[in-house]
Amino acid sequence: MQTIQTLLVVGVGLIGGSFALALKRLGRVNRVIGLDRNDLLMAQNLGIVDEISEDWQCAHNADVILIATPVGQIRTVFAELAAQINQRSLIIDVGSTKQSVIADARASLGVHYARFVPCHPIAGAEHSGAAAASAELFQNKSVVLTPEHADPQALSLAVELWQACGARVHTMSALEHDRIFAAVSHLPHLLAYGLVEEFAQRPEAEQLFRFAAGGFRDFTRIASSNPEMWRDICIANRLNIQQELDRYRQQLLRLEQMLDRADATALEQLFVQARNARENWLARS
Amino acid sequence: MQTIQTLLVVGVGLIGGSFALALKRLGRVNRVIGLDRNDLLMAQNLGIVDEISEDWQCAHNADVILIATPVGQIRTVFAELAAQINQRSLIIDVGSTKQSVIADARASLGVHYARFVPCHPIAGAEHSGAAAASAELFQNKSVVLTPEHADPQALSLAVELWQACGARVHTMSALEHDRIFAAVSHLPHLLAYGLVEEFAQRPEAEQLFRFAAGGFRDFTRIASSNPEMWRDICIANRLNIQQELDRYRQQLLRLEQMLDRADATALEQLFVQARNARENWLARS
Repeated sequence: MQTIQTLLVVGVGLIGGSFALALKRLGRVNRVIGLDRNDLLMAQNLGIVDEISEDWQCAHNADVILIATPVGQIRTVFAELAAQINQRSLIIDVGSTKQSVIADARASLGVHYARFVPCHPIAGAEHSGAAAASAELFQNKSVVLTPEHADPQALSLAVELWQACGARVHTMSALEHDRIFAAVSHLPHLLAYGLVEEFAQRPEAEQLFRFAAGGFRDFTRIASSNPEMWRDICIANRLNIQQELDRYRQQLLRLEQMLDRADATALEQLFVQARNARENWLARS
Repeated sequence: MQTIQTLLVVGVGLIGGSFALALKRLGRVNRVIGLDRNDLLMAQNLGIVDEISEDWQCAHNADVILIATPVGQIRTVFAELAAQINQRSLIIDVGSTKQSVIADARASLGVHYARFVPCHPIAGAEHSGAAAASAELFQNKSVVLTPEHADPQALSLAVELWQACGARVHTMSALEHDRIFAAVSHLPHLLAYGLVEEFAQRPEAEQLFRFAAGGFRDFTRIASSNPEMWRDICIANRLNIQQELDRYRQQLLRLEQMLDRADATALEQLFVQARNARENWLARS
């Protein structure tokens, strides 16, 4: 395993910062350059980045480029990079949607497209920003790669870097990725945001929040997530998410009908199946 | 504050067991009798109950009777108690719905109805059973009392006991209680159960659960709750819960329409409002 001379992190938040910290701690990278629309002094003080750049020219000497911005910005980032990067840089992203990012890469990266490996580390948190970054973040977490068009050398370096960070690497098609995560991640975020906002709009909101307790706190934890990031995810994967929302509304209608006919047996059966499925999942994971 | 000679706990689970433990630790109660359809040997070994009874006659000498069964059983419990109890027992329940329990009490308790104080400690957890009981469970938790028809002496003893357990006592009407908790507690439980069951029914269920992560785990924590308890709550408070479900489906339709027209601004605004409301709530509580 060779040492990486220069890692460029575009978007030094929770994920970008944690990737840099993990590789630095392992001695896998000599120099980390941070590029961000926000002030990176804190990231520098925390030892996440060695240098701060405000200019895309810094991409010229980068060996590995990690793009960790909200997915809505990735297309612009690709276009800026394409004008600067050399013929050997590995480019990886960490976006929560993959088909949209691949379409952006294909449209903007030109000859560099084959060295782009689409990645999605499953390690989000409701806390965002470089201050929350940690070298341990990816330990035992999954990272999904959707490398349909990546060249084997680029792919193999990407896999190796994620494994060095402690992650388990999975590969699948971007189509499959976007369907799965619309269900298990994007839908629950919308449901949690939707519930809290609906309560907050009511005249009796204060009374409701006053008696909300631990169950509500955990159920809505993801409603404290970064709004811009989730706006972009919703737009990028909206067809899959719409389908999931529609399906879930059908499920709620089914529950309402059980209540309507006071069908205690059907309700209990559904609750038992949910609890068993969840307990089995926890036991396996 | 006088010591309670005999406390009878009907249903020795998380809540009933914790109430007994808290009062025993404080020396507020001399003897705890447990009555349960399940085996209580473990509760006895854990020091939660001093005696196990299988006969409602044990209610005869009880000074305080705590009913901590699922709400669907409370009517039967009242009827059994009414035939046995003395003229001074305080009777309290801990059901998550209050109008149904009050109707049951009125129908079954006869002359003892005035010494019944309806209570709802907001201290549930997805772990149930006596093994999960703790003398600390009610510390800094809220307990809602809906004592519309209770006599002042009974009410004052009930308040005092909950405060001794470390709880903050609130009073409101049963009508208001059932509306508030339909929204902040019963609805989220149904939403979580509904999501997990819907995923579990799909052909690709295994794939979905494989990539479900921390956000999904917290969002669905309450789907590991006791199915029988939640079946009873749904039936007892079904009109309010139906209304909440209906309202929430409207909210999801609104989200679907935002996705349909790719309205990034509206989505972000909704997410910001949800996050702010949640962060304000956390800061206050």
